[in-house]
Amino acid sequence: MPKIVDHEERRIHIVSAVRAIIVRDGFDRVTMRTIASELGYAHGAITRYFPNKQAILTAVFQDLHDTANSRIAEGVGEKRGFDYLHHVCASLLPFGRRGRENARVVLAFWSLAAQDDEANAVYRKHTGRWREYFTRALTEAAEDNTLRGDVDIEVAADEISAANSGWQVAAALNPPLVTSERLTHALDALIGSFRA
Amino acid sequence: MPKIVDHEERRIHIVSAVRAIIVRDGFDRVTMRTIASELGYAHGAITRYFPNKQAILTAVFQDLHDTANSRIAEGVGEKRGFDYLHHVCASLLPFGRRGRENARVVLAFWSLAAQDDEANAVYRKHTGRWREYFTRALTEAAEDNTLRGDVDIEVAADEISAANSGWQVAAALNPPLVTSERLTHALDALIGSFRA
Repeated sequence: MPKIVDHEERRIHIVSAVRAIIVRDGFDRVTMRTIASELGYAHGAITRYFPNKQAILTAVFQDLHDTANSRIAEGVGEKRGFDYLHHVCASLLPFGRRGRENARVVLAFWSLAAQDDEANAVYRKHTGRWREYFTRALTEAAEDNTLRGDVDIEVAADEISAANSGWQVAAALNPPLVTSERLTHALDALIGSFRA
Repeated sequence: MPKIVDHEERRIHIVSAVRAIIVRDGFDRVTMRTIASELGYAHGAITRYFPNKQAILTAVFQDLHDTANSRIAEGVGEKRGFDYLHHVCASLLPFGRRGRENARVVLAFWSLAAQDDEANAVYRKHTGRWREYFTRALTEAAEDNTLRGDVDIEVAADEISAANSGWQVAAALNPPLVTSERLTHALDALIGSFRA
């Protein structure tokens, strides 16, 4: 009987294994050969899903962000205003060992997205969506009279976006500085600066 | 008469040309061969100064930061407190076309620094120094009674560091969003959030 391959399962397996290889070795050291050999697949079994390592990195990044978006959707409940903003940011910031590991993937992906239109479109899709979340949260805070009167919502959304990206950099490049305590304090201070 | 080579001049020439090539093509597409051929040097004339392209990227990054540090030192005058903080951040943020171009170099370097100890040490040296500047500025603001009473200086220094890094990401990956106006508003809002 011919072997039946579950393609979606295999794709997920590749993405998850490559994430671990990037975290361990760094993206530049990843080759299609290492990936195939570590997974015990023939080279062609990888290229069937991903033509090159850049395509896999984009899929790994996309996967991290799908996970983050599920986390946001799951815990959101009836949250609005600053509670909602806190929830979204806490889901995106690089908390814990997993967060610091993922930050290494994020940095490799950003470097690719500076040079590759397809990767760049993925970056813009995600950051654009999150910016809408921030704007929604701040608009709700204004409706609820909890937003400080002189806060400009667009400027504040820019600040939140920059802070979230900046913490990824620190988490990847100087992980001892990025403890959960410091992340929590910084997030509280940022949100606090918008409160009436 | 043998040709006399000014090694420092040649080194500077290589670094400046490679910056332009990274901005134009992206770091992944840079090869030692392209560099040598665009500069009209023999391959060996490049490797004499830099053993590989990672070493050149580190030198280009180091050069950007030496330039930023000179800009900070030149304009600083008698500035202290929030004036000093504004001056330092304005020198680091990706203002203008040059700032957006340099941000592409910064992202490529960060990706390297996540995988390479030497590059990582350069990153930590610079960000560590800037963090000291932020701390100094906030400490002076506290002495001058211009710092809001509930601001924790370490947390605020973390916030400023994250914001500065985050704007590099946006400048490289979504340059139309990073106008001088938006950068200025975000910097003013961040500093404003620390003021008494």
